[in-house]
Amino acid sequence: MSLNEMNCLVAQSGGPTSAINSSLSGVIEASLENSSINTIYGAINGIQGVLRDEILNLSELFDKPSSINTLKTTPSMFLGSCRYKLPTQEDNLDEYKRIFAFFDKYNIKFFFYIGGNDSMDTVLKLNNYAVENNYDIRIMGIPKTIDNDLMDTDHTPGFGSAAKYVATTLLEISHDAYCYNIPSVTIVEIMGRNAGWLTAASALARNDYINTPDLIYLPEVAFCTNQFIADIKEIQKTKKNVIIAVSEGIKDETGQYISATAAPNDSFGHAQLSGTGHRLEQLIKESIDCKIRSVELNVLQRSAAHIASLTDIMEASEIAKKAVEFAVNGETGKMVTMHRTKNAPYTIEITTIPVSQVANKEKKIPREWINDKGNNVNQPLIDYIKPLIQGEVKTEFNNGLPTFFPITHLTQRNHY
Amino acid sequence: MSLNEMNCLVAQSGGPTSAINSSLSGVIEASLENSSINTIYGAINGIQGVLRDEILNLSELFDKPSSINTLKTTPSMFLGSCRYKLPTQEDNLDEYKRIFAFFDKYNIKFFFYIGGNDSMDTVLKLNNYAVENNYDIRIMGIPKTIDNDLMDTDHTPGFGSAAKYVATTLLEISHDAYCYNIPSVTIVEIMGRNAGWLTAASALARNDYINTPDLIYLPEVAFCTNQFIADIKEIQKTKKNVIIAVSEGIKDETGQYISATAAPNDSFGHAQLSGTGHRLEQLIKESIDCKIRSVELNVLQRSAAHIASLTDIMEASEIAKKAVEFAVNGETGKMVTMHRTKNAPYTIEITTIPVSQVANKEKKIPREWINDKGNNVNQPLIDYIKPLIQGEVKTEFNNGLPTFFPITHLTQRNHY
Repeated sequence: MSLNEMNCLVAQSGGPTSAINSSLSGVIEASLENSSINTIYGAINGIQGVLRDEILNLSELFDKPSSINTLKTTPSMFLGSCRYKLPTQEDNLDEYKRIFAFFDKYNIKFFFYIGGNDSMDTVLKLNNYAVENNYDIRIMGIPKTIDNDLMDTDHTPGFGSAAKYVATTLLEISHDAYCYNIPSVTIVEIMGRNAGWLTAASALARNDYINTPDLIYLPEVAFCTNQFIADIKEIQKTKKNVIIAVSEGIKDETGQYISATAAPNDSFGHAQLSGTGHRLEQLIKESIDCKIRSVELNVLQRSAAHIASLTDIMEASEIAKKAVEFAVNGETGKMVTMHRTKNAPYTIEITTIPVSQVANKEKKIPREWINDKGNNVNQPLIDYIKPLIQGEVKTEFNNGLPTFFPITHLTQRNHY
Repeated sequence: MSLNEMNCLVAQSGGPTSAINSSLSGVIEASLENSSINTIYGAINGIQGVLRDEILNLSELFDKPSSINTLKTTPSMFLGSCRYKLPTQEDNLDEYKRIFAFFDKYNIKFFFYIGGNDSMDTVLKLNNYAVENNYDIRIMGIPKTIDNDLMDTDHTPGFGSAAKYVATTLLEISHDAYCYNIPSVTIVEIMGRNAGWLTAASALARNDYINTPDLIYLPEVAFCTNQFIADIKEIQKTKKNVIIAVSEGIKDETGQYISATAAPNDSFGHAQLSGTGHRLEQLIKESIDCKIRSVELNVLQRSAAHIASLTDIMEASEIAKKAVEFAVNGETGKMVTMHRTKNAPYTIEITTIPVSQVANKEKKIPREWINDKGNNVNQPLIDYIKPLIQGEVKTEFNNGLPTFFPITHLTQRNHY
């Protein structure tokens, strides 16, 4: 390693998506091509890998285009993830010193952190430290989250693939539910934390013969149990099978989660939401006598790479390539964002915003995109999501199963 | 309708699969080509559609090859289903008279019932009545069930696609789980009633970098809670992330289901199994301090047509075509079956067996295909399932979503 070497580091953080490895591939491809960057390192398990000095040499691992292509359509995080909140400098200056000592050791001049709003908090803190201490490093955030809840970007990579999975699954569940000629209620619980974007994607399942989901409940509107039961009874006046899409993060008027689980918060203080569907199933059983089923899409919606959106996978790679370009051109403390310039034909422009605009904030669905009753979505919301689920990834299959990029370093580390 | 017309009737019954519409398409294609058969009718909601005189003219609906192809890869039941146990003649002779009056009215000379072991009970009873009363009709059973629990057939159509979904999903869940570097237990609850075939398919997710699931629990072996916790602790000595596949229908030594739900039995006296994973999640929480998640694959495993097995879809159609051929050649009271003549290359032969050998019976996994400890599967079981998940269906997509055959008649009927 020569003294003049300029290397880059990339890491992934937060919850998995089907597109986050495509962003990783974009960083690798752009860095391999960029003469300003020598070696590409990947930190294992996000910023914790930096603190533990656990890295991979990605320049060596991905020297073949075919391996990059397989990585693009491999779900979850190739580099592993973390949910670690970096302390403030006041609370733990030592961690900052260790991180920047690591940067020095490996001549890291560019750091790309792919993650959601919590990860952007890490980007912000590290960039502030670098600026205050005149460190020669450019730190960029690359967005990802199936929740689509990042501020100041049209949408987030990862959302389109999860939305495509949700809509496809809702359609398949509807075919399933309609085959029985008995009154039934099917509740489908969908992720998204405090934002309803992913649940709203269920409305894309509607076509000229199926109008499900019949009801959609989002965290943006306070959830009222009595109204919920009344809504179902109203639909049941004219329909046998009722299909409901519901966000894991719905809350009552007092701000309490409906979720049955009283699981402990994670290190960012977020409640672990799950069990909302089961809780509603119980509520309905107390008031309505019919077959009731709740389906929790669970981790499948964030890891079903075999049905990823081609638009999403392409954008995730594209936005990451741009991040490399912006960083080499001198930007730092920014997150790359997408700006929708047209809806028909769908066109985006990639630009940057200061990461302080994004960190620790949540973007919710505008109230006017939800119907007055708060139990369905309006057309503009459907029009907004539709372009993001277009196109199919050509997954390679071997022996009947999708071929993903091996995560040997993660599975080996998993053994003591 | 002339007096000499010979028409056929087809109906679907039991739980949905991704391949049961392919069997329907096989009946339609073979009947359209067969000069002995004039009109093809479909009864809506199985034998209940016969009792209610609710039918569709399938000859008219499927006069184009393109529509047949879309039907082949459409999940759930195009004709709708029922879970109706036909009474014995002693208990309700009138129902038999009504069913055969319906056959007379539409000149039905061939009746094909696509279903599982309960549906074969209906085939058996109707055929016995026909024989006893010298009715000129041939009644054939066409197997389907994701549970793969029918006697005297190598496997059942529907199983291969569900198995492919289960293995693919296990692989994707494993990529998801391994991205966090913290101790965790992930339980994946899989369908299959009292047989473990579908849960065993999870073992096909294993490859040269991932060896999950770590533990597999099947209904064929009595489930012991203490042993279960001990098994997990043993794995945790050497691995951080433990992934467990478990059948919804596991029972303790006394034959009691582990399932948390005390839901009422269905009309065939089967307990509604679901919640096993959640129950185990609770059990682990009482003994082990780590992140625990349970994932219930739920109806997705039987309706995820977008990842159906091509082998399964082709066989489902082929076996149904043979059923038409056998019936026209004079067989009745039979179920078509598959006999595996070779495993490499995988080859099957389609033949028939008396439906009495199948009705109301369940085929379990041989004990020697499960390991001694009862917490994993042996290689012969993996070798048996592997050929059944091979090949991918080319699902057509429109606007980002799979194109399925419209079930307008079911959705319209769903409205009062």
